[in-house]
Amino acid sequence: MAFPAKATHQQTRAHNAALVLRALYDHGPISRADVARLTGLTRTTVGDVVGGLMGEGLAHEIGRGPSTGGKAPILLEVVDASRDVIGIDLGEFVFRAALLDLRGRVQRTVEREVGGLDGKRSIEVVHELVAELIAARRSGTAGLLGIGVGTPGIVDADTGTIRWAVNLEWHNLRLGELLAERYGVPVRVANDSRAAALALVTFSRPRPQNLVAIKVGRGIGAGLVIGSELFHGDGFGAGEIGHTVVDIDGSECRCGRFGCLETVASSRAIVTAALAAAREEPDSVLADRISPAGELTLEDVRAALDAGDASALRVVARAGRYLGQVIAGLIGVLDIERIVLHGSVSRLGRPWLDAVRDEARQQSLQLLSQDVSIELAPAIGDLVVMGASALLLTDELGLAVA
Amino acid sequence: MAFPAKATHQQTRAHNAALVLRALYDHGPISRADVARLTGLTRTTVGDVVGGLMGEGLAHEIGRGPSTGGKAPILLEVVDASRDVIGIDLGEFVFRAALLDLRGRVQRTVEREVGGLDGKRSIEVVHELVAELIAARRSGTAGLLGIGVGTPGIVDADTGTIRWAVNLEWHNLRLGELLAERYGVPVRVANDSRAAALALVTFSRPRPQNLVAIKVGRGIGAGLVIGSELFHGDGFGAGEIGHTVVDIDGSECRCGRFGCLETVASSRAIVTAALAAAREEPDSVLADRISPAGELTLEDVRAALDAGDASALRVVARAGRYLGQVIAGLIGVLDIERIVLHGSVSRLGRPWLDAVRDEARQQSLQLLSQDVSIELAPAIGDLVVMGASALLLTDELGLAVA
Repeated sequence: MAFPAKATHQQTRAHNAALVLRALYDHGPISRADVARLTGLTRTTVGDVVGGLMGEGLAHEIGRGPSTGGKAPILLEVVDASRDVIGIDLGEFVFRAALLDLRGRVQRTVEREVGGLDGKRSIEVVHELVAELIAARRSGTAGLLGIGVGTPGIVDADTGTIRWAVNLEWHNLRLGELLAERYGVPVRVANDSRAAALALVTFSRPRPQNLVAIKVGRGIGAGLVIGSELFHGDGFGAGEIGHTVVDIDGSECRCGRFGCLETVASSRAIVTAALAAAREEPDSVLADRISPAGELTLEDVRAALDAGDASALRVVARAGRYLGQVIAGLIGVLDIERIVLHGSVSRLGRPWLDAVRDEARQQSLQLLSQDVSIELAPAIGDLVVMGASALLLTDELGLAVA
Repeated sequence: MAFPAKATHQQTRAHNAALVLRALYDHGPISRADVARLTGLTRTTVGDVVGGLMGEGLAHEIGRGPSTGGKAPILLEVVDASRDVIGIDLGEFVFRAALLDLRGRVQRTVEREVGGLDGKRSIEVVHELVAELIAARRSGTAGLLGIGVGTPGIVDADTGTIRWAVNLEWHNLRLGELLAERYGVPVRVANDSRAAALALVTFSRPRPQNLVAIKVGRGIGAGLVIGSELFHGDGFGAGEIGHTVVDIDGSECRCGRFGCLETVASSRAIVTAALAAAREEPDSVLADRISPAGELTLEDVRAALDAGDASALRVVARAGRYLGQVIAGLIGVLDIERIVLHGSVSRLGRPWLDAVRDEARQQSLQLLSQDVSIELAPAIGDLVVMGASALLLTDELGLAVA
């Protein structure tokens, strides 16, 4: 605990407003009296703050609740549609931007394929997507809380600078500043795996206390939630498990080292291994699905799995086991019992998940792993886009903690 | 952030008292006005609380500071000797108990060798040590804040139950309850690696924000400090890195699996490897030091290192590299820049430390590892005993956060 700086009246007001808004958000419909009980604020303060929130259109009265003796209390709730946020997922093949309400519900989505684009052109695509969404709002940027971006790579979330995103060829790109200057709204940028973890904290109920959300796609990264807050690490690199070395004799990784988890467990690694396996077994379902150009996709691997193809199963199980090994390390370090998997590879489903779980259990202390649950992420929507929007809910409204 | 329960007047008073005491502890000698500034409390509240603390003997006035215009302010500080705490380190060969003041300074130490004792006899030894220290206090248990215990194994710190401590043959031992019933004072029990980390947060200045303190002895464990608080994990197993598998073809670990870090990097692993190396090189310094009973100690390995013995260096570097590999994983997961090593193996000094550092850097992302410092713990005293005492400073006075 650091000492709080002496709070000014203005800070106290903002703090109280965030407390009340959060009580409405998490517990609404709720009466003023119950908000006072939950927050520890006086009824007078709650009344004042609620008045302010209603004036700003953030909260409204929805009628009377059941009476508990006296007059039935008036119930309040957050007006979910009173503000919106632009959330952006700078994905491996597609950039997707969406307009979301205060519950992370998507109102409108625009996207562009970006495979093969260079770094400069990629930034232009981001601008196009944002401009398109703003144009679609009748009110321009009025009522827009801001823009949140989830991106692969290592991101300085304080300044919105992408320090390193290898597949986008971005180095020390001040994306947050670029967007804020152009659109005149607050902008927050975070690593995509961390944004996804924030989505789970912000939009799932009950809010998880400790959780690790692992995104397994072309890259592999984890978002760490500790005490219902996102943990960034000292250099915004917490959760960079994709570059844990799991095979000292392994192949070269795009980070320059050898045998990183990404070289054996990412979407690309799986497709590459599947192609090799298919060529060794020309009668397999996998071999059947090789395209005229000599290629396979993750979808092909999944189809082969569904058809019970043994070589597909072998390839997928091997990738899953490597991930399980790294998860075992995570369990040992953090002893966090709730681990959630998402990203393109997680669509491989059960055979992959079983291999991950099995290896994670075998490789970790039984006393620690017995209570661990490793699950696919709940299907609450596009986690990165939602998490990117949640970055703004935090900063602008105090609804989450990032 | 969870909603705070509505605070009662009593809770508010206790909270304010802890805030003020902590300001005195961290920033004393300090004036009442500066305490008010630091804590955000009103001068009236600070005056009341300080009066209470002085009445309890926890704080006193030490005279006037320099004037900044008006009348020179009266300075206050914590009376470090006003309370004491018993801190206990249930070490691998020795149980050590000490009486410490509020700064973790040891006033008196008692210890017993425990090598070879069974679980039941070990508990009796703990009782003997505590009884001896209490007998040495003229006032019995008056003014004694409580008893803190640092133990190997997995500990439920909420209930003071040792869930599993393999070398002590303890399973689900309710040590906290046993001691509290017998001595009638508060008791806190924590894993020794975590206690050591707490000592570094409580007694070193400035208080570290994020830190990993790794104890490398017969067992290997890490204490994780996140946001100046100890992180326990969901099942009090955070930091259990000793059972990370680093060598799939390795030898059996006392946990029942194979190739855990402890099988290659603990004190015992190093001594065993040194003995094997010495037998292969009968002319080495190491071989010279083999006892008539055919044994080597860690001290012998250190002496051979000092003499520049090549096989000792090889053995120690290998153990260090395995630890470095696991630290690289930690860096990837947590991105914590300050890593501190302690425990018996750390006395091997530079050749070992160099191997740890070198491997940790090679195995982790350069962007993350470039800012990492891996150092031997500062020589501020017996970290486990100090950390065990700090457990009480937390609970009883609010001076630290465990």
